[in-house]
Amino acid sequence: MIPKIINFINQYHMIEKGDRIVVGVSGGADSVCLLYVLKEISSLCGTKVIAVHVNHGLRGEEADRDEDFVSNLCEHLGIECHKFHYNIKSIAKQEGLSEEETGRKIRYQTFLEVCNQHKCNKIAIAHNKNDNAETVLFHLFRGTGIRGMTGIEPNRIFSKKHGTIRIIRPLLCIERMEIENYLKEKSFLYRTDSTNLSDEYSRNKIRNHILSYVTKEINPQAVHNIAEAASKLREAEEFIDSIIEAKYRELVSSVDQEIRLPVAGFETLANVIKKGIVRKIMESLSGSYKDLESTHVDAVLTLLDKQVGRQIHLPYHMIAERDYHDLVFYQSTGKNKEASCLRDINPVAIEIPGSCYIPELNKYLAAQVIIREKTEPIPKSSCMKWFDYDKIENAVVIRPRKEGDYIQIHSTGGRKKLKDYLIDRKVPQKIRDHLLFMADGSHIMWVLDDEGRISEKYKVDETTSRILLMKLLDAEENEDDR
Amino acid sequence: MIPKIINFINQYHMIEKGDRIVVGVSGGADSVCLLYVLKEISSLCGTKVIAVHVNHGLRGEEADRDEDFVSNLCEHLGIECHKFHYNIKSIAKQEGLSEEETGRKIRYQTFLEVCNQHKCNKIAIAHNKNDNAETVLFHLFRGTGIRGMTGIEPNRIFSKKHGTIRIIRPLLCIERMEIENYLKEKSFLYRTDSTNLSDEYSRNKIRNHILSYVTKEINPQAVHNIAEAASKLREAEEFIDSIIEAKYRELVSSVDQEIRLPVAGFETLANVIKKGIVRKIMESLSGSYKDLESTHVDAVLTLLDKQVGRQIHLPYHMIAERDYHDLVFYQSTGKNKEASCLRDINPVAIEIPGSCYIPELNKYLAAQVIIREKTEPIPKSSCMKWFDYDKIENAVVIRPRKEGDYIQIHSTGGRKKLKDYLIDRKVPQKIRDHLLFMADGSHIMWVLDDEGRISEKYKVDETTSRILLMKLLDAEENEDDR
Repeated sequence: MIPKIINFINQYHMIEKGDRIVVGVSGGADSVCLLYVLKEISSLCGTKVIAVHVNHGLRGEEADRDEDFVSNLCEHLGIECHKFHYNIKSIAKQEGLSEEETGRKIRYQTFLEVCNQHKCNKIAIAHNKNDNAETVLFHLFRGTGIRGMTGIEPNRIFSKKHGTIRIIRPLLCIERMEIENYLKEKSFLYRTDSTNLSDEYSRNKIRNHILSYVTKEINPQAVHNIAEAASKLREAEEFIDSIIEAKYRELVSSVDQEIRLPVAGFETLANVIKKGIVRKIMESLSGSYKDLESTHVDAVLTLLDKQVGRQIHLPYHMIAERDYHDLVFYQSTGKNKEASCLRDINPVAIEIPGSCYIPELNKYLAAQVIIREKTEPIPKSSCMKWFDYDKIENAVVIRPRKEGDYIQIHSTGGRKKLKDYLIDRKVPQKIRDHLLFMADGSHIMWVLDDEGRISEKYKVDETTSRILLMKLLDAEENEDDR
Repeated sequence: MIPKIINFINQYHMIEKGDRIVVGVSGGADSVCLLYVLKEISSLCGTKVIAVHVNHGLRGEEADRDEDFVSNLCEHLGIECHKFHYNIKSIAKQEGLSEEETGRKIRYQTFLEVCNQHKCNKIAIAHNKNDNAETVLFHLFRGTGIRGMTGIEPNRIFSKKHGTIRIIRPLLCIERMEIENYLKEKSFLYRTDSTNLSDEYSRNKIRNHILSYVTKEINPQAVHNIAEAASKLREAEEFIDSIIEAKYRELVSSVDQEIRLPVAGFETLANVIKKGIVRKIMESLSGSYKDLESTHVDAVLTLLDKQVGRQIHLPYHMIAERDYHDLVFYQSTGKNKEASCLRDINPVAIEIPGSCYIPELNKYLAAQVIIREKTEPIPKSSCMKWFDYDKIENAVVIRPRKEGDYIQIHSTGGRKKLKDYLIDRKVPQKIRDHLLFMADGSHIMWVLDDEGRISEKYKVDETTSRILLMKLLDAEENEDDR
């Protein structure tokens, strides 16, 4: 197994003489194996290895025993070891992220800090081939572009702030079973994380139910095959990216906070290149890659066939506009345009799953159906709402109010006229005509104002099995977890 | 649902006025739905629809009832119906293919024949979005290039022999559940194929175990998300293909049954384009796309850094050779070169899974591990062998004989010197030195000659759980099942 890893390290030029490498060590099989491998290489190449252990404060005594184990192992190997304690549960709550996500974020931050403090230039992470296959499937099931299907990168630049720091993943060429067999053969001890076997996270479900079934019943080499496909896709994606980059430089110009894309050179390009250029423009203008979805890109492309002056509203108050010879992108500064009367607007049907732009709010509304997990608390946010999917009777639409609308405001039942409800809330008529609603026939499901009232009929309760999850897309969501 | 299908048909220009369309109707939900949809469209656009039902002779009375059902349905709808009977079991045996593969082959052949006979220009198939997601996962688990991950094509040219005949798949935008709900709502009857629920085929396992689990436990939109990812990959693949095609025309020249590729223009290209060009050259020279694997392409690329005169042997007796300025590809006609003494050859370690070229045999040897299915008979072929994977103790190598080699020739045990075994078989010394063997240490597992004896120790028996499957790659195997 070691020669295979060394080949892989050489193939990707992961380690060079004089490198100073921070290695994350949880105490599990993968990171213990990585530590032994790096120790062996360090004596050959004169690299310096520093271990970092992060205690997440989530698994009580079990975590303390992991920490002691890593301390002792490092002492035994003569490797410098730094230990950190966090209360991930409370950080996750503060930041509104899942514990899994928070743990990952804190770990990488810690590695980076140690890197800076000890003048290291690389961070070694013990991801293996199974992790890679799990990532590909995870992205595929959740929805992804090509990049999400290229899996975990063996080698990438992590931070350029303090000199270039690289992440390297020398075990990405090795399956979990090979690592465990190697450690067993060498009688090297390691710790087993009890939460890896739980089904709390989607990734564990993929590991424990899907890949184990596929490997047993369909193809014993599935993990290897998925990783190979991901690596072919990585080559394809790098090539396509290079063409997008070249065409972007050739075509796109930026003057006075406006980005211009000449239609003549653009419209003959292949779809995949067009989409990449539009995404790059949106990223460059907004300074973010979050909340920019395929639907936005597709919407911009429809402008090619539209009349001069037509606009598409995009996240981050961006506007794409059809000009005579160009598509023009800019950020609208008029966030607080005077509210106009909305009574004449046509209803917009919501595609489920899907998302649509609501120009009157300058927001995107995203819809998806999720399975009810009893442990998850109902979100209390005016921009993210849960509805009992199976209680909806008609196509869901966004529209202004109209005659006959009603809402249910008590859990015990009973309809109230929407007009009466708004009058009770002392909403003046002028404002009433400026509101938008999500409706199921004449039943108002959601009042799209700051209060964000939803009808009692659709509230998620004990009997709910499927949830319609609606989000106004200013809400931040992590698009990429690598 | 119908407007969604009509949009999809228009998006891909699937149906035009005057089309004559053959539609495959099994009687299941998908094909019954497709028949109703095409019937509706035909009255709008003046297209002609002809139904074809293929009875595979596999499910006895159940299949006969399906056939009657389709007959009656077509009569009711006023659609011409042609019925065909085959004995798929016996055809599969004759052709050495699986029943599933044979069924698919025969169905498409039949559709094509009816198409020709009745001057039709399109064949409509009832694949839905779930079929598409299943295909993507099936390819991913089994190992695939980018194309395999693009799923099922909505629209493709099937045959140019008798005028252009297209395959169209109007239901590819619709999930299975939507189809079933639609038929239920309309009270349209359909038949349920009992074999769809069995786990006999890998595809059924993906459908009944994996996708159903993923949809329930991980993401209810997984089928939609996989299909979307496949469609993004299709755009990427089409773009990359167009660049490969353009560079191929620009660089490659063909004179006197030799194909030449100038190194200067070639070596600066992106990896994915290089690989595509080499694959295209091999396909063009051999007239086949079967048995051409990534390992062959990678092997050819290593020639770029090699000395003039270095050769790589490829399937179909193709040779790739490093010339001064070019890579040269040609087919060796000297199939029956004089056997040379092999005693000096170094052992070649077999990667599992993987394949390697054995120049002395001009064959590829492919290795993979599969799970033992008790129902499958042990193959009796000299070019495909099964070994009990868990009885192998060392790295498996291919090499000439050497001192100390032995083989087990009785199932009851006991070793026999290889030399004695060969002498017993009256193999003259000159030939003995020309033989290659697959070995586990000094234990000869497989004699690579026409008899193809394997050692009793490794034979698959009742206790075997994992099988090492070795194939000499002249054996035909279907690379693509679309």
